[in-house]
Amino acid sequence: MYDHAEILTIGAELLKGSTLNTNAQFLGRELTQLGFRVVAQTSCGDAIPEIAARLKDALNRSTVIVLTGGLGPTPDDLTREAVASYFQVPLVFSKEQFSNIRKYYRRHAKPAKRLIPELVRKEALYPENAVPLINRFGIALGFYLRQGRQWIFVLPGVPAELEKMFKQNIVRLLKKNFAELSAKPHLVVKMVGLSEPEIMTKLGRDFFDPPFEFGIYPAPGEVAIRIHAEKQSVIRQLKQKIKRRLGSSVYAYEEISLAEAIGKILTAKKQSLAAAESCTGGKLSAEITHVPGASLYFKGGITVYSNEWKENLGVPKHLIQAKGAVSPEVAWLLAEKVRLYAKSTYGLGVTGIAGPSGGSKRKPVGLVYISVAGPKHSKGGQHLFWGDREQVRTKAVKKALEYLWREIR
Amino acid sequence: MYDHAEILTIGAELLKGSTLNTNAQFLGRELTQLGFRVVAQTSCGDAIPEIAARLKDALNRSTVIVLTGGLGPTPDDLTREAVASYFQVPLVFSKEQFSNIRKYYRRHAKPAKRLIPELVRKEALYPENAVPLINRFGIALGFYLRQGRQWIFVLPGVPAELEKMFKQNIVRLLKKNFAELSAKPHLVVKMVGLSEPEIMTKLGRDFFDPPFEFGIYPAPGEVAIRIHAEKQSVIRQLKQKIKRRLGSSVYAYEEISLAEAIGKILTAKKQSLAAAESCTGGKLSAEITHVPGASLYFKGGITVYSNEWKENLGVPKHLIQAKGAVSPEVAWLLAEKVRLYAKSTYGLGVTGIAGPSGGSKRKPVGLVYISVAGPKHSKGGQHLFWGDREQVRTKAVKKALEYLWREIR
Repeated sequence: MYDHAEILTIGAELLKGSTLNTNAQFLGRELTQLGFRVVAQTSCGDAIPEIAARLKDALNRSTVIVLTGGLGPTPDDLTREAVASYFQVPLVFSKEQFSNIRKYYRRHAKPAKRLIPELVRKEALYPENAVPLINRFGIALGFYLRQGRQWIFVLPGVPAELEKMFKQNIVRLLKKNFAELSAKPHLVVKMVGLSEPEIMTKLGRDFFDPPFEFGIYPAPGEVAIRIHAEKQSVIRQLKQKIKRRLGSSVYAYEEISLAEAIGKILTAKKQSLAAAESCTGGKLSAEITHVPGASLYFKGGITVYSNEWKENLGVPKHLIQAKGAVSPEVAWLLAEKVRLYAKSTYGLGVTGIAGPSGGSKRKPVGLVYISVAGPKHSKGGQHLFWGDREQVRTKAVKKALEYLWREIR
Repeated sequence: MYDHAEILTIGAELLKGSTLNTNAQFLGRELTQLGFRVVAQTSCGDAIPEIAARLKDALNRSTVIVLTGGLGPTPDDLTREAVASYFQVPLVFSKEQFSNIRKYYRRHAKPAKRLIPELVRKEALYPENAVPLINRFGIALGFYLRQGRQWIFVLPGVPAELEKMFKQNIVRLLKKNFAELSAKPHLVVKMVGLSEPEIMTKLGRDFFDPPFEFGIYPAPGEVAIRIHAEKQSVIRQLKQKIKRRLGSSVYAYEEISLAEAIGKILTAKKQSLAAAESCTGGKLSAEITHVPGASLYFKGGITVYSNEWKENLGVPKHLIQAKGAVSPEVAWLLAEKVRLYAKSTYGLGVTGIAGPSGGSKRKPVGLVYISVAGPKHSKGGQHLFWGDREQVRTKAVKKALEYLWREIR
């Protein structure tokens, strides 16, 4: 049996789409990892009756409720007031948080601004029936309440503050009080090169018998599977089946990206990489360097966005004229030449038409040539990606990394 | 008076945090722009009773409800079934969508895979009381229902499909049926270089008198203001005030990115650009080339991720040794040298420490030097950005574009 958890994110900026709700994702992932079944996530506006109504709904469904947002200093921030009003208790003042606020202003503000605005006193308030959660990363106090087996956590909406407070305070509290949950066995499988229906077909119907909790999550160019089961032995058996049926497409059995998986292999083998990209325009390099420590194996990348830059790298002008800048020959030479230039073990080359314009009947928008050059040989292929400019670019990046991964694994 | 709208996003991947809910942001922004007041956004799991219960809640609150997700081919996709069950009607089959699916398979799949899996037939089903919305960008049929003044739209969860279907079908339907909302005059102001409190101080209290609907939305490195008012004359007056008080930081009075604003100026002036970046690792180039038509002015970019690459571009080895790879001198030379290499009007240089490791007391994580070189002079500066690796990189990219924009505007 699971305990239900839910997430309540508060603020007009979420409803109006001004802010992307990364807090909901962070909390969903954390609560799931702790072993809770997250049953709902709700965003509502900064109004006391709305917040109180959503809190009431949540208390009817869930054991653990995390509220974020609406703890700021301005009059439209009303989450403290809403929780206090729901429980019909007054707000009280945390001297400890206020001394933190004072320190914060001393450290961060320009001298002229070191006086704490009256408005900000509010940030140290919490409902009388709650336990304050000191915020050392910002100025808004958090707090939590316990009602029998139910827990309500109220945290600031600034993502960095929320994440640090959750990891440093809430995880410990929940692990201690829901010890039986944390232990639930699970399995993550991250794959490239297969679509969702292909994966389902390869797994086959018998895979799902006897039943267990299964989720399949497609993202551009890759698919993840996440499985939870009651026993570790079930997880072990499922992993064996997955290895046999999907193994050649699995790049990780953990929550890492393809670029991270590649980074691990290149670091372990002491090999290096360089990239020359046209239509992806820097996204391939950016994806590679998103991984901390990428400088250990990634020497550099060139966005060859003009024919001049392609020629400077060593792609002959006559070849571009004869075959076109979007051709398998150019992709191949980009990979070869950037590898030579960088003196790296591998070189990646990408050229294509990201759109929305620039396509033709023979070379439509979405056409991308990818090549990987290594110490022994080069490999490459032609792809026709579906979607708008950014989707074509994203899929081309993922496919280029897939080519590389198949070479080095 | 506003009409209330709300968003119902369906899928365990959202609750578990496997997927970031970009659809909620997209829909929130679109519905707000159409003039609706978005009062709630809810995510729930793929279960018929849950979806039906959330739909019932929404129908008690809102005039327009948009559901997305759970229209896929696998057995855990249950949104069609849930809506049909809520209205107690059967599902019927859309021949038109199925012929689209057939075309889709013919065009995209490898010859061996052109047979349509039985599973996929489900994607052409819709509740009998609904109007089908043909999906030309994917295989899942959408649909909508009308109940008096209330509208329910059900769209696929794949962001590209959702966005295209919303823009091509739903916007038109809503504009026609809620004409009084859409006409509402509004103003968008996009700014760089000022924080939210700085903007509020510069606007002053008198700006808000008499009252109107005002939203201020900070994003990494920039802030947007969105204003709605009853009369166009009010909007005109507010725009004049904003020009006087904030004008030097406004890069656009429309919904475009800073990179797009830069692209417009460079295209009009027939000037060109190149970039050499270290810590941003390709993200600066990627942001520039995200703009369609960037090849008109962007010659190329180099991710100088190793000292070797910096030296190859023309930064002297002894200078890197003396000053460090993260120094104002290196940023300046990156900008100058890439400008010379590209023979472009402008060159951008970025070097810094994105973290999480690599920082020191003198050069902490988040320290970034940025330089822009032009035909007349170079400008640059030192910045200390707060946040994790990706936040530091994103802020550095935005700041580099800000330097360039201030040079060329």
